[in-house]
Amino acid sequence: MAKVRDVLRVRPGVDPTAKPAKVFGHKPGDFPVGPESKSNAAKQLVSTGERLDKLQEALFAGGRRNVLLVLQGMDTSGKGGTIRHACGLVNPQGLQIHSFKKPTRAELRHDFLWRVRKALPAPGMIGVFDRSHYEDVLIARVNSIVPEETWRARYEAIEAFEQELVANGTAIIKCFLHITPEEQRKRLIARLERPEKHWKYNPADLDARAHWDAYQTAYAEALARTSTDLAPWYVIPSDHKWYRNWAVSELLLETLHEMNPSYPTPDFDVEAELARVKAAT
Amino acid sequence: MAKVRDVLRVRPGVDPTAKPAKVFGHKPGDFPVGPESKSNAAKQLVSTGERLDKLQEALFAGGRRNVLLVLQGMDTSGKGGTIRHACGLVNPQGLQIHSFKKPTRAELRHDFLWRVRKALPAPGMIGVFDRSHYEDVLIARVNSIVPEETWRARYEAIEAFEQELVANGTAIIKCFLHITPEEQRKRLIARLERPEKHWKYNPADLDARAHWDAYQTAYAEALARTSTDLAPWYVIPSDHKWYRNWAVSELLLETLHEMNPSYPTPDFDVEAELARVKAAT
Repeated sequence: MAKVRDVLRVRPGVDPTAKPAKVFGHKPGDFPVGPESKSNAAKQLVSTGERLDKLQEALFAGGRRNVLLVLQGMDTSGKGGTIRHACGLVNPQGLQIHSFKKPTRAELRHDFLWRVRKALPAPGMIGVFDRSHYEDVLIARVNSIVPEETWRARYEAIEAFEQELVANGTAIIKCFLHITPEEQRKRLIARLERPEKHWKYNPADLDARAHWDAYQTAYAEALARTSTDLAPWYVIPSDHKWYRNWAVSELLLETLHEMNPSYPTPDFDVEAELARVKAAT
Repeated sequence: MAKVRDVLRVRPGVDPTAKPAKVFGHKPGDFPVGPESKSNAAKQLVSTGERLDKLQEALFAGGRRNVLLVLQGMDTSGKGGTIRHACGLVNPQGLQIHSFKKPTRAELRHDFLWRVRKALPAPGMIGVFDRSHYEDVLIARVNSIVPEETWRARYEAIEAFEQELVANGTAIIKCFLHITPEEQRKRLIARLERPEKHWKYNPADLDARAHWDAYQTAYAEALARTSTDLAPWYVIPSDHKWYRNWAVSELLLETLHEMNPSYPTPDFDVEAELARVKAAT
């Protein structure tokens, strides 16, 4: 099978001002790589989970490098579901999940990356960002929260920031959970029709939906401008939840596999300790 | 079946200076309640996971009350394994796990509860403490890190602290993972014989082991003195990992079930929003 990373990655050199569909490369309902049925994806998820588990333990034990998984997407695109089903495959002790909400007053007084730096994963951890610093070139742009020169300058700031993280040993995986407006409508209706899902519904979601095209344009430009070899963006077809979960779990697996984390060399004499344990009362 | 909470709980009114075995009530290899075989426990874990999942979501959605699970026990007693297998049953987004290490210099300059307060779970979350403020009446006592009058005064400070948490809506579950020295020896040897487990071994573990009886005495007194109706201690037979995982997951389930978390009432008009979504392009 082709590497999921190669297939889902935003093409290097794609024109950032091209039509969003061109930047994204595949459609929300596509299966450009991997399983084409829910049952096959479910089977793979089990073995992926076992492999992820071992790799994550070595990453944690090594305690040097770490992973940062960035999840972005329109409302209902499944950021929470991805955390539950894909990230839920690894030991929760090795996960550091952070949800970015509307910035507080205190956060707004600082540079936009200030709160992001505070939420970075510790060495050995897999950090997950549910929304991220990319909101500052998305909603900030669509809602004209800051002038164009401000959000436009952030592309470079983000690139420099991410390169700094990579230089410090972080592997960055950025996923755009790509859905159609039709699928969003279905999911919003489902949230309203099921009382136990009401809490997930926010009337403001419709305001963002009203700016659908503007968001797609903002996403396309942000992805094209900030998808680098060191911190690539992946477009995750997300109209099918099972495909989305499968794809993100595979990206985690491929990334960890390539990092090839190794257990640290013991800083004690193993044989001597074995003798000590056996001699101890 | 009897409630796991009733069976595993440290008996109210037990003499804190009684022999540790009397305070603990059951032995590390016992099955005082629930399944007596690994396969039965595994079956129950699946349905427990499904029920926990629903309850945890409602707790999270409600965003008011929370849970604090405290895990204490000798080295190799399985604090990490419990987090992985019992806490791993719930959505990782609803978990807030904190491992307490040897206090830093900065932490030592503050009251012993200072660092604990900073690690408390947010509303709606299930917080898990891998070690806790109880170290300050355990290792602090056994290693004479502070004078007796200091650690002895902490029992009251801890009780007041926990009552404050409970008054603020936290449900506290404190688990002592009870193992035999024979089982610890086996597990230490296993860590040394398997290279991928070396990282879990610490030569200092043997120093604590050399003080086994002093630790049992310190645990027994701490449990007896701080097990209150509002913040009870449970003694988890932990020589069998599957029993330990089952017992802790049941305690979580019973606690959440009793909290009976409910989804918040929508602060919007559901029918009106449904009409808006259906009318939106």
